[in-house]
Amino acid sequence: MIKVGIVGGTGYTGVELLRLLAGHPEVEVTVITSRAEEGVRVDELYPNLRGHYDLAFSTPKACELAQCDAVFFATPHGVAQGMMAELLAFNTRVIDLSADFRIKDIDTWEAWYNQSHGCPELVAEAVYGLPEVNRQAIRTARLVACAGCYPTSVQLGLIPLLEKGLVDPSRLIANAASGVSGAGRGSSVDNLCAEVADSFKAYGVKGHRHLPEIKQGLSEAAGGEVGLTFVPHLLPMIRGIHATLYSELQVEGVDLQALFEERYRDEPFVDVLPAGSHPQTRYVKGTNMCRIAVHQPQGEKTAVVLSVIDNLCKGASGQAVQCLNIMFGLPETAGLNSIAAMP
Amino acid sequence: MIKVGIVGGTGYTGVELLRLLAGHPEVEVTVITSRAEEGVRVDELYPNLRGHYDLAFSTPKACELAQCDAVFFATPHGVAQGMMAELLAFNTRVIDLSADFRIKDIDTWEAWYNQSHGCPELVAEAVYGLPEVNRQAIRTARLVACAGCYPTSVQLGLIPLLEKGLVDPSRLIANAASGVSGAGRGSSVDNLCAEVADSFKAYGVKGHRHLPEIKQGLSEAAGGEVGLTFVPHLLPMIRGIHATLYSELQVEGVDLQALFEERYRDEPFVDVLPAGSHPQTRYVKGTNMCRIAVHQPQGEKTAVVLSVIDNLCKGASGQAVQCLNIMFGLPETAGLNSIAAMP
Amino acid sequence: MIKVGIVGGTGYTGVELLRLLAGHPEVEVTVITSRAEEGVRVDELYPNLRGHYDLAFSTPKACELAQCDAVFFATPHGVAQGMMAELLAFNTRVIDLSADFRIKDIDTWEAWYNQSHGCPELVAEAVYGLPEVNRQAIRTARLVACAGCYPTSVQLGLIPLLEKGLVDPSRLIANAASGVSGAGRGSSVDNLCAEVADSFKAYGVKGHRHLPEIKQGLSEAAGGEVGLTFVPHLLPMIRGIHATLYSELQVEGVDLQALFEERYRDEPFVDVLPAGSHPQTRYVKGTNMCRIAVHQPQGEKTAVVLSVIDNLCKGASGQAVQCLNIMFGLPETAGLNSIAAMP
Amino acid sequence: MIKVGIVGGTGYTGVELLRLLAGHPEVEVTVITSRAEEGVRVDELYPNLRGHYDLAFSTPKACELAQCDAVFFATPHGVAQGMMAELLAFNTRVIDLSADFRIKDIDTWEAWYNQSHGCPELVAEAVYGLPEVNRQAIRTARLVACAGCYPTSVQLGLIPLLEKGLVDPSRLIANAASGVSGAGRGSSVDNLCAEVADSFKAYGVKGHRHLPEIKQGLSEAAGGEVGLTFVPHLLPMIRGIHATLYSELQVEGVDLQALFEERYRDEPFVDVLPAGSHPQTRYVKGTNMCRIAVHQPQGEKTAVVLSVIDNLCKGASGQAVQCLNIMFGLPETAGLNSIAAMP
Repeated sequence: MIKVGIVGGTGYTGVELLRLLAGHPEVEVTVITSRAEEGVRVDELYPNLRGHYDLAFSTPKACELAQCDAVFFATPHGVAQGMMAELLAFNTRVIDLSADFRIKDIDTWEAWYNQSHGCPELVAEAVYGLPEVNRQAIRTARLVACAGCYPTSVQLGLIPLLEKGLVDPSRLIANAASGVSGAGRGSSVDNLCAEVADSFKAYGVKGHRHLPEIKQGLSEAAGGEVGLTFVPHLLPMIRGIHATLYSELQVEGVDLQALFEERYRDEPFVDVLPAGSHPQTRYVKGTNMCRIAVHQPQGEKTAVVLSVIDNLCKGASGQAVQCLNIMFGLPETAGLNSIAAMP
Repeated sequence: MIKVGIVGGTGYTGVELLRLLAGHPEVEVTVITSRAEEGVRVDELYPNLRGHYDLAFSTPKACELAQCDAVFFATPHGVAQGMMAELLAFNTRVIDLSADFRIKDIDTWEAWYNQSHGCPELVAEAVYGLPEVNRQAIRTARLVACAGCYPTSVQLGLIPLLEKGLVDPSRLIANAASGVSGAGRGSSVDNLCAEVADSFKAYGVKGHRHLPEIKQGLSEAAGGEVGLTFVPHLLPMIRGIHATLYSELQVEGVDLQALFEERYRDEPFVDVLPAGSHPQTRYVKGTNMCRIAVHQPQGEKTAVVLSVIDNLCKGASGQAVQCLNIMFGLPETAGLNSIAAMP
Repeated sequence: MIKVGIVGGTGYTGVELLRLLAGHPEVEVTVITSRAEEGVRVDELYPNLRGHYDLAFSTPKACELAQCDAVFFATPHGVAQGMMAELLAFNTRVIDLSADFRIKDIDTWEAWYNQSHGCPELVAEAVYGLPEVNRQAIRTARLVACAGCYPTSVQLGLIPLLEKGLVDPSRLIANAASGVSGAGRGSSVDNLCAEVADSFKAYGVKGHRHLPEIKQGLSEAAGGEVGLTFVPHLLPMIRGIHATLYSELQVEGVDLQALFEERYRDEPFVDVLPAGSHPQTRYVKGTNMCRIAVHQPQGEKTAVVLSVIDNLCKGASGQAVQCLNIMFGLPETAGLNSIAAMP
Repeated sequence: MIKVGIVGGTGYTGVELLRLLAGHPEVEVTVITSRAEEGVRVDELYPNLRGHYDLAFSTPKACELAQCDAVFFATPHGVAQGMMAELLAFNTRVIDLSADFRIKDIDTWEAWYNQSHGCPELVAEAVYGLPEVNRQAIRTARLVACAGCYPTSVQLGLIPLLEKGLVDPSRLIANAASGVSGAGRGSSVDNLCAEVADSFKAYGVKGHRHLPEIKQGLSEAAGGEVGLTFVPHLLPMIRGIHATLYSELQVEGVDLQALFEERYRDEPFVDVLPAGSHPQTRYVKGTNMCRIAVHQPQGEKTAVVLSVIDNLCKGASGQAVQCLNIMFGLPETAGLNSIAAMP
């Protein structure tokens, strides 16, 4: 059994890790930390876990975490930076769900996250945790920086087009919508049920922190800088991201359906739906799947890609477990076999 | 025009007062206070009000509030107590939406609200603001303590039975469910959309603060102490209270439908639905109506009353406006004519 | 009092007309028709209307409808066509909420609606019911074909840019999302609560019937053909449309905020929010308002306009009442003064 | 591998069976029937199943179903009756999720279901499928009639009290609320999202078909006839039942918490929460668990039991799989190990 620790286990990505790992045949969670809830049993805070864990939150200590084969950081940005060097020195491998090590350009990171980076020397080494792009590098990585939720849904939808140079990389549009769990478990008036449960809005149009992350990934796929307008929206529901992606075809007569099917043929967690489909977020809820459809409305030059994921699963904790499986040579789908419930 | 002030205008009952009073032909809101939002325009915080108010929040000052003919307190419990004596001394009439002056027995209030009462000398004078019971006293009251949300829905459903002595007063059950706006606009993890938007639960089964208020009202109707089990539940929606009320008939052959129709014949805001109906909370959303149905399943001895209100309207701000209308001799429905939107 | 009739009153736009007209000081609803519900009282089907109407559904007869000064068609497409010539011959003025007379090119209509047009001779005369564009023509129209829901939200958001030639008209993108009431009151598995209440999807990407209607309106504003990709989405909520509109600026240094404020300065139902705002559908729920914000993310060449309406109100019945007010010389806001409830 | 067939696989309990059985280590679904969807792949109708089944719906034929070791009926009431005798004659064991064989008194069944019973001769043999009561009989049953959704939640909450004679059996109250998936996948105006997604109501107060089923089970537990008032309510959400159960204690000084813990100590799917808890429907969503809390408010004589299940899982398909496991000597939790997702 692989021993894992979770730092910051009280948040939504923490409890999602616990849910997924409870069913993982090769993993045992041995430490879970939270300063605020020290001593509280995890199944007291999350009664859905009753019967599955006999574990309480503890204060994070590097020496204890270092007993683990792998440590997940399910923390807000800024936290993993502070402990990373120490942990890696113990030969513990780290999977960071936060944004701390995702962006290669440190100035960009500091500008968007509005603080100095606490561990710039490890940024270059960190492997961006999007297995469909970086599987090989993830295998041997000491530090994986898991892709964010919007970035996963947008990149998986656009990279087949960009890798082949089929669309104009200077005018990409990513219109995405997320369930409110994406905002995390922090108390806030803005995310009260009474504020958001019966309404819909765009937010962060001026600039959202996932913009530079997405641009970095798309630029790699395109082999050069891309122009991207990214507008996130808040859905009156809990889980799910739906990305509607617009790009302008610069080549005629391409079979987009075949292109996508070919690109993702061997991917266990990317499912290209039949031509003409409209993926629904509920098709992937609670699972690590990304389901994608590609359209070319009226046969005109705009390609429209629809991509859905569960923001807490393929957009966070599921992706982290997928990376763990890759890092430790386990079957990539271990612990990730559940099926979305419909209805 | 009657000049009114609102203390604590940033909460949900505050903005609901603003919405209702914007359409009131005889009232002008001249002061609205909030320490936290001093200087902020009300339509900046609540853009639904754009075009209807040219007003900003100010810090509450008794001398300014005293310029008003009437002042609403839309504050958490404990606030109105502190300013009440001073305001009344200015001859301003006060309509308190909070729980401060609802309970006549001060020890009971202090036990349930877990603090000393700051103004016990005015409790006896305060008139309980449930017009269907106290219309006459409200007319001349200096201080009206508006009935709470659950208490309104439960009392309107049970008093016809208790006033006539038709049911056993010792075994009353009030099973009620409220939308999450009843919890107010305070930031809290428990009321995040991600926590409550797709679930249902009972809460406060051990004892909810509305229990003594309801028992006080029902005991008056029954002419003696009542036994009541009250279980509130939290609905995954924003507005609306539904009370399902069980009592045991101790008289045979009563025409319950006729009884309820007769009791509320002249009430502008209580609508007894046709026999066999099931009121839905959406029938009253955004309005000051209480809609009621009464059943006697299988003709057996349990009477089941179903009663719905909008917790923020008939359960709070609408009731407050109704009281204002009564106090100032205005048509009782002024400003309260809107119709629930369906769907 | 102006006497009005409503054909097809059992659907969602029908009951919304009843709600709005109940509060209209100059209008009396004298006839409401439904074949399926003949003889049923409107307040039996819609208990929210109890106390406001003493009216039952009747089978539609032209001779009775002709007694009205104006008749609303709140019917599915294909119905108004059949009665239009006869009604107009009686000098009754007609406001059609359906799609029957919106599209000027009859071949286009027939292709998208997949049937022959039943009254092509009146299409040219029909005035497209979008007051912000056609107010003058509406005044004297015999037949107003009210703008659809998506078309209203999209056109109001894009025409200020197109009228001034500021954006490339060949690459417009309208990404819109609607509450499920837009699908109407027909029974359908696809719109069951269990199917859509906790999910989000695009639909009709291949081509939605509102596409030709929107293109027609935008082309008029642009003074020439436009290229438009329109992707509608289904929101897990009941009311509200949010349009996110992307266009490419071809002129530098324009003050978009000033442009929009100027364009809509005198419009009672279009509200340009302060710079940097994100309109929420709840800001307009139950009202005839369209609230708009305009952004230019990172100062780059893509303009992003956000536009919200209530699909049943400004997107249907409210717009119809607004047109009625214009046609009969009433204050344009009569019956349309309500304020959205928050929360 | 045990071969199973599913009759009526397009409904919500059918797809839930498919979801659960996809993860069952000892079961293979070999036949799934639907007249309406003959030839359609199950993963076309339910894309959440993509990658898990290579199966299409077929027309039900007894000879093909008879090849299975067990057959589930996931049909509306009235269907299983017609095929039951023939199937049992083939020595296929049957698990009926419908109401056809639940009620022992045939007159009662016919009165409540308003039709003649098509197979009265097998009613006596049928074993009521509530493992916590009938595990022994289920083991060897040829025909299991699974307990209904409300009946499961209510019986599990009340039988510990009734079995011990602690409460007055003549005045039981079951106030229950269900998500809308309980109404099934039939098209209906009443269950449209626009009708129910933002409202709450009681229904069937006059008498719901689950009433005689519940009374039958409670009477067995009590050892004599019970008096029960049962009021179901419709929640604005998809999955979950919450029962709030009121009964009058006739014995003093009982430790209710200990009683419940003792009664369910060895039950894998009944979890008695710590004293003072309030179970939430989300604690059990997608799982076969029933979580229960018991209260005695203010120490008075009314016991209040709170019981939550997932109506499609422990209330239908999960319970059916649990019965299958018992019938075939498999581990009782096989295929039923998933954990509810929070949030």
